[in-house]
Amino acid sequence: MSKFDFDSIPHIKEVSACHGAYDENNLYEKCYKSFDERQQESKKVLPSIEEAIKRVGLRDGMTISFHHHFRNGDYVVNMVMDVIANMGIKHLTLAASSLTDCHWPLIEHIKNGVIDHIETSGLRGKLGDAVSHGLMDFPVIFRSHGGRAAAIETGELHIDVAFLGAPSCDPYGNANGYNRDSEEGSCCGSLGYAKLDALYADKCIIITDHLVSFPNTPFGIPESQVDYVVKVDNIGDPNGIMSGATRFTKNPKELLIAQYATNAIVASGYFKNNFSMQMGSGGASLAVARYLREKMIEQDVKCRFALGGITGQIVQMHEEGLVRKILDVQSFDLIAANSVKNNRFHQQIDASYYASYVNKGAAVNQLDFVILSALEVDTEFNVNVMTGSDGVIRGAVGGHPDTAAGASMTIVVCPLLRGRIPTVCSHVNTICTPGRTVDVVVTDQGIAVNPARPELYERFVEAGLPVTTIEKLRDRAERIAGKPEPIKYTDKIVGVLMYRDNSVIDVIRQVAD
Amino acid sequence: MSKFDFDSIPHIKEVSACHGAYDENNLYEKCYKSFDERQQESKKVLPSIEEAIKRVGLRDGMTISFHHHFRNGDYVVNMVMDVIANMGIKHLTLAASSLTDCHWPLIEHIKNGVIDHIETSGLRGKLGDAVSHGLMDFPVIFRSHGGRAAAIETGELHIDVAFLGAPSCDPYGNANGYNRDSEEGSCCGSLGYAKLDALYADKCIIITDHLVSFPNTPFGIPESQVDYVVKVDNIGDPNGIMSGATRFTKNPKELLIAQYATNAIVASGYFKNNFSMQMGSGGASLAVARYLREKMIEQDVKCRFALGGITGQIVQMHEEGLVRKILDVQSFDLIAANSVKNNRFHQQIDASYYASYVNKGAAVNQLDFVILSALEVDTEFNVNVMTGSDGVIRGAVGGHPDTAAGASMTIVVCPLLRGRIPTVCSHVNTICTPGRTVDVVVTDQGIAVNPARPELYERFVEAGLPVTTIEKLRDRAERIAGKPEPIKYTDKIVGVLMYRDNSVIDVIRQVAD
Repeated sequence: MSKFDFDSIPHIKEVSACHGAYDENNLYEKCYKSFDERQQESKKVLPSIEEAIKRVGLRDGMTISFHHHFRNGDYVVNMVMDVIANMGIKHLTLAASSLTDCHWPLIEHIKNGVIDHIETSGLRGKLGDAVSHGLMDFPVIFRSHGGRAAAIETGELHIDVAFLGAPSCDPYGNANGYNRDSEEGSCCGSLGYAKLDALYADKCIIITDHLVSFPNTPFGIPESQVDYVVKVDNIGDPNGIMSGATRFTKNPKELLIAQYATNAIVASGYFKNNFSMQMGSGGASLAVARYLREKMIEQDVKCRFALGGITGQIVQMHEEGLVRKILDVQSFDLIAANSVKNNRFHQQIDASYYASYVNKGAAVNQLDFVILSALEVDTEFNVNVMTGSDGVIRGAVGGHPDTAAGASMTIVVCPLLRGRIPTVCSHVNTICTPGRTVDVVVTDQGIAVNPARPELYERFVEAGLPVTTIEKLRDRAERIAGKPEPIKYTDKIVGVLMYRDNSVIDVIRQVAD
Repeated sequence: MSKFDFDSIPHIKEVSACHGAYDENNLYEKCYKSFDERQQESKKVLPSIEEAIKRVGLRDGMTISFHHHFRNGDYVVNMVMDVIANMGIKHLTLAASSLTDCHWPLIEHIKNGVIDHIETSGLRGKLGDAVSHGLMDFPVIFRSHGGRAAAIETGELHIDVAFLGAPSCDPYGNANGYNRDSEEGSCCGSLGYAKLDALYADKCIIITDHLVSFPNTPFGIPESQVDYVVKVDNIGDPNGIMSGATRFTKNPKELLIAQYATNAIVASGYFKNNFSMQMGSGGASLAVARYLREKMIEQDVKCRFALGGITGQIVQMHEEGLVRKILDVQSFDLIAANSVKNNRFHQQIDASYYASYVNKGAAVNQLDFVILSALEVDTEFNVNVMTGSDGVIRGAVGGHPDTAAGASMTIVVCPLLRGRIPTVCSHVNTICTPGRTVDVVVTDQGIAVNPARPELYERFVEAGLPVTTIEKLRDRAERIAGKPEPIKYTDKIVGVLMYRDNSVIDVIRQVAD
């Protein structure tokens, strides 16, 4: 039918990679169904996870991914892994943005050879314990949230199939972390970690408990990145999804730490109009937010933006006009999740935008200060958020090293002792965040400032804060609790800690019983 | 410093592409400046376009891109090309999402060897005329909006440097099509075409006339995709940016066509609750929207979503509750642009989401009907929106073939004659949209239905619409105006029309004088 000869077009091979003349016989069939019918008969909506797995062609040795926005209420990982195991697929790499207590059934899948490798931000509970005791042949790869984003962007972590739980999805794949069509069901707010998986995975399957009307806008994940949608009864336990994040501490030690940290912020020079911050969701962090709010009102200081995992406290400050904008990669509680849905300037951001070091600019680089927790911190200011005092994996890297590197002032808050265990020590068991990126350590027994920051030290002294040195904090802890026996390990490496640039910063060895 | 030997980690080369042990001496310097200082001294903000061009390393033979959201008010293309020409860079490929009248100064840059190739959706005015008269050695590549998106996604069109004008941008690169910090300046609403360029270009430079506070959220283009930001006095003429789109036609022919088209929609079977649509910005299309609104109110029928280039009329229907959601790849007037800014369910979408055939699902596939214009339509229902009756390039492919293929009912509206020139003819000069994707042609002299759609034909007859055949329309046009003389061309191919799958559907030859 062509009225021209394709090969006669001058320079056609040079001007672009045109792949030939249009052939009307190759035209895909035009659909005459109405929009409503297309939605009801959407070819993306499949009756089961098994069917979706067949369609995407999952096979032995591939890499699958999950997000952790449902935290300890997640049903998706276990549900999908059971189906995969039943289908007889083996030797997979499971690359989750994080894993938690509820994922202990993975132990059986590891033993049975369904899962060979794990990449995650963290492990907890029985699974962390089993890995620490040598469950796996290959070490678990731990990455920070920014490091994982970067690994996905550079191709170091290639995802074959992403299985992404979503509290709402329309039949064409527009997915979100909340649901506008009904007040019921699960809700997780931001889909920040999932967004990047959807963008980069070869195949993307949304698993939802609420099929809603097209277009499910504004969307967290766009239809253009979604292959299939599976509706299941429940993707998670709403209570587990939002567990514990917003508790207000009554622990006097935590309140004291929070008071010191707040005073340190105010004295630091960074507490001025248009400042920026990230707060954690631990008891002390939440108390800092509470105290800081009072200081902001007192001194009429406004926050330009709050970043990160977002809590209801930040939302409250946003709605009061104290925090102008919110950049949310992960909503920690229901107030935060509903705010993503309802507040226009509470913006859902992806993990790369949040913290990747390979993109053209991550939000962590715009932080004045961040409040971070620690299981251990040592006299070089290195921080461990991964292994307990018994050497067992029970934590997560999270955005810790990313925000520590990005923020102008990184404040680590921790009690000097937990029970009889010193938190400040000579050498942390596991380095997650290098000391050069940590500026201040605030404990209930005093504040230590990194010697790289003499100006902060001086300001804190001037403000009458209980400043000491990190060595003195260690000494005091050891004086009270005694020097702990070194943990006994075998030679076997069970975990590898990647820094945010995806170089190996530390390893975790099998604990000896 | 490492407490482990990297090479001793078991399976380390297998488990991921870990690139070595962390070296604290390689750590980038942590920034201690306050957020405010970081913003004021942002390394992304450069004093001139020239400086930005130097930094990104633009050199001979590269491909640069621009968007056309400023339409005929655009200053960015000419501004940037003048700088590039002065810098002595040559043999570039200019890949714009479209070009228009105001871009005639490109003629000199083509003559001087600064630009060797052009890829665009359209050309008009002096530039279209010059190209049609043999200005360029290489043919211009014309792609639809969806085809361009697909070409970018597949790598067929690789963009080295994107120069993207934005009515607002913060110092870290979050850019948008409107400005919340001031009521003044340019405004274009959606940055739909620019979004994909930012995502895929190796280097991305934002050119703005309003530097605003970080974070400029919600953003059209995220900081994570932006290398540099240049502030200039003016990126465009606000009047030109929004020119002419919203005029209400008083042309009785256009009003008659619109009345027929509206009645055809109502009779088609697609006009029922939860329908979906795309309307154009031409006089007849706008009149269809007006008439359709009345029918919707009369019959209590709501539209689930409106797609595409969006006009103030669609926004009005949205704000009245007649149109539930808007998916906006391009805002045609100031009302639409402000609605993107203010209406939460008026969603900015990118060109891939809109219309790409290589992603996992484009919005055009969910259309019940689309109203499209035509310069010519032939008896095989092929449509020309590119070349005039003299064979000269004066149009743009736009989303025409994309929406025609996606919509259940594609309605082409055009007068039977323009002056003494038949619009319905035996063979269009240039095939932009293949006839198999066009269902209905509505003229002031009657309606023709594609024989592939007998059910539509019957419904229109039943509704008493003036249905005829496409051959009879052609015959009538030729009876009135006479059969036009064939256009005289030389053998030289000056343009290549790519269908949305990026195969060559037609060529445009040099007009003979």
